[in-house]
Amino acid sequence: MYPDSLKNLIEAFKYLPGIGEKTAERFAFAILDLDDEQIELFSESLTDVKSSIHKCSICNTLTDQDKCFVCSDTSRDNHVLCVVEDSKSVFIFEKLGIFHGKYHVLDGLISPLDGINPEDIGLSQLLDRIHNENFTEIIFAFKSNIEGETTALYIKRILDDLSIKITRLASGVPIGADMEYIDSLTLERALSDRKDIE
Amino acid sequence: MYPDSLKNLIEAFKYLPGIGEKTAERFAFAILDLDDEQIELFSESLTDVKSSIHKCSICNTLTDQDKCFVCSDTSRDNHVLCVVEDSKSVFIFEKLGIFHGKYHVLDGLISPLDGINPEDIGLSQLLDRIHNENFTEIIFAFKSNIEGETTALYIKRILDDLSIKITRLASGVPIGADMEYIDSLTLERALSDRKDIE
Repeated sequence: MYPDSLKNLIEAFKYLPGIGEKTAERFAFAILDLDDEQIELFSESLTDVKSSIHKCSICNTLTDQDKCFVCSDTSRDNHVLCVVEDSKSVFIFEKLGIFHGKYHVLDGLISPLDGINPEDIGLSQLLDRIHNENFTEIIFAFKSNIEGETTALYIKRILDDLSIKITRLASGVPIGADMEYIDSLTLERALSDRKDIE
Repeated sequence: MYPDSLKNLIEAFKYLPGIGEKTAERFAFAILDLDDEQIELFSESLTDVKSSIHKCSICNTLTDQDKCFVCSDTSRDNHVLCVVEDSKSVFIFEKLGIFHGKYHVLDGLISPLDGINPEDIGLSQLLDRIHNENFTEIIFAFKSNIEGETTALYIKRILDDLSIKITRLASGVPIGADMEYIDSLTLERALSDRKDIE
């Protein structure tokens, strides 16, 4: 029914996360309303992104330079390392401007059920860095689920002999969330990790 | 903060309807996970779609041929013409397989507030067709709002001298909708257009 090129474009939009047939169709029709220049830019940015972007040679954050913008910034605190599960986490922290140390990006989290074992997430590069640089604290900033906990515990055990402070993000009740919408695991954690009111 | 090519891709995704910064970022990161072939297909389908698609020379439906798939289908009923506001409407009807006549696609609907006047929506091509072909019924299948009503009334007045049956889609309560969620205009129309129970 659809012309071939429109069909192909609809299929392409379905590569995107959460996009089904209806939204893909809506996007494809919207493309027809763009001017040629915009479509050219869109098309080029797709091919450019894969060819120009690679991992920072030090911390694995996605970059188009040899060193990413954090690793090449000499004003950062060299003593605190924040270990994250993907580059996106780096950009999230940086957008908020709430962390001023260095990052290290793993290739995901340990997840035996998905066949992702400790040797698959690039740990050796992280351990090399920890041994060669002078970090006084390592922060694990992973998703707060089984994979995140497993990965943090696994790395912590390897680092136990070193006299480095090892921390993870606090878990608990999100600020502003209604009590009734907080899942039971989060609430249980918030209760057991309760803090003194000072 | 983002590498340039990633920034460009995020901006490009924001061309799409309803897509803001966060979703555009999510899409851009998802592209990095696609394999090269998929990205190539995506990029090509974007440039192809604009160059290969144009309007059917008879009815204005988007097509990559000279005549669209409906106009070139000799089994269709040549006596009923469904007039729609855009090509998407044609594809919606055809997907459902509920109409077997011909279509004519206008360039949108009359909307004086948006500066779209009768001469802007391609009426002359429609009127030529109506005079030259043998339609016994013209159905207006427009959005059920002021623009849709205005456009239908405007064309109906021009066609009044011809002995052709002119109809529009029924308006009323959507099947399955809860009464409390139906807007007042729809309910008012449903009441005034009430039908005998047979």
